[in-house]
Amino acid sequence: MIELYELAGADPSIRFSPFCWRIRMALAHKGLEARTIPWHFGEKKLPKGTEKVPVLVDDGEVIADSSAIAHHLEVAYDNGPSLFGGEGGEAHGRFVTAWANSVLQPGFFPLIVMDIFAQVKPEARAYFRSTRETRVGTTLEKAAEGREGKLPALHAMLSPLRLVLQESPFVGGEEPSFADYTAFGPFMQIRCLSEFEVLAEDDPVHAWRERMLDLFDGLARQAKTVFEQ
Amino acid sequence: MIELYELAGADPSIRFSPFCWRIRMALAHKGLEARTIPWHFGEKKLPKGTEKVPVLVDDGEVIADSSAIAHHLEVAYDNGPSLFGGEGGEAHGRFVTAWANSVLQPGFFPLIVMDIFAQVKPEARAYFRSTRETRVGTTLEKAAEGREGKLPALHAMLSPLRLVLQESPFVGGEEPSFADYTAFGPFMQIRCLSEFEVLAEDDPVHAWRERMLDLFDGLARQAKTVFEQ
Repeated sequence: MIELYELAGADPSIRFSPFCWRIRMALAHKGLEARTIPWHFGEKKLPKGTEKVPVLVDDGEVIADSSAIAHHLEVAYDNGPSLFGGEGGEAHGRFVTAWANSVLQPGFFPLIVMDIFAQVKPEARAYFRSTRETRVGTTLEKAAEGREGKLPALHAMLSPLRLVLQESPFVGGEEPSFADYTAFGPFMQIRCLSEFEVLAEDDPVHAWRERMLDLFDGLARQAKTVFEQ
Repeated sequence: MIELYELAGADPSIRFSPFCWRIRMALAHKGLEARTIPWHFGEKKLPKGTEKVPVLVDDGEVIADSSAIAHHLEVAYDNGPSLFGGEGGEAHGRFVTAWANSVLQPGFFPLIVMDIFAQVKPEARAYFRSTRETRVGTTLEKAAEGREGKLPALHAMLSPLRLVLQESPFVGGEEPSFADYTAFGPFMQIRCLSEFEVLAEDDPVHAWRERMLDLFDGLARQAKTVFEQ
């Protein structure tokens, strides 16, 4: 029995964490089912020793951190399709994860911070505001200002992803790998929460995002967004 | 017999192309010797059908583009140590190459553009100036101004590399792979041409650069720079 603790919105059926989406996709890649357990910003009730989602509990074993969880799934379920495609592929996952964490997510964050804020439960808003305002060095409202004007810099920021996707359908090559899931997470966060479109239609990254939404019988495409009731 | 056409400086024993260094390191990784043939900006004499260095000629077969050359070496010399570590690792090489080409090299370029210019043969200077000024959208001199002030942005730009190197000695993991060589190239360009130091001593990227310089009996460390006569 696998359990996945993941971030939920004020509407608990909306799951918008980019980190958690990495694991949702990785589980589907491995053909594994998991019971998902919603968790909200500022809540305490996570398995012992863990502080942040995603947390995976697999037959009693507790694993925190999306990269550690992916490694666990690869090793523990080695009869399923490989998530990485060998050791070099695991290094690939680490680099793209580092890029997503340090470039992509901080780049996207100001664009949708008020959309995220709207999904934080009222009792956790003070916590969310204070931690995030410290991170961005200004108020949430100021960080969110003028997002249209940020698009050119954002498109430039996506260059490494775009260059790779000009040559192959997935970041992993002919087939998706964990590198795809880790880069896709931030796009799912936007999709779940915001009507802001960050990609031009003729961007190879746009076509890739469509392919990612279609994987596993449309797992990501069917995820609930704030635009459905 | 393997021949490698590579960029040379006004002093032809100085080889400072980041793209060519990828291949120098890849050849050493595979335990292969090559005869290197110097080529200068604006020269025509490259093997038929090619326009840019590096170009590898392996037993009559002509291969251009550093990624294609790396792929060729991996396939043609499959008894040597793997350059990639499997298919996932080849995708890793592609992503880090895309990142180096679109982020790292354009980021470094203004810092050392006048140092590069000094190594361009007089007859190729007009060509170099016009192509590079088009690329950076200003004069070489203006692009090079105030490089100390660009260091904070540069250090932020290195985040994905730094995050990976906080966890493992090489970008490829416990051992170097083509991903390391492709990220290392731009650092070798600076080392060959400029005394400008882009890394703080306590940066994990600095320690990695030292490890890269030590590989293959100090191949890169022993390369000639403009500071030796």
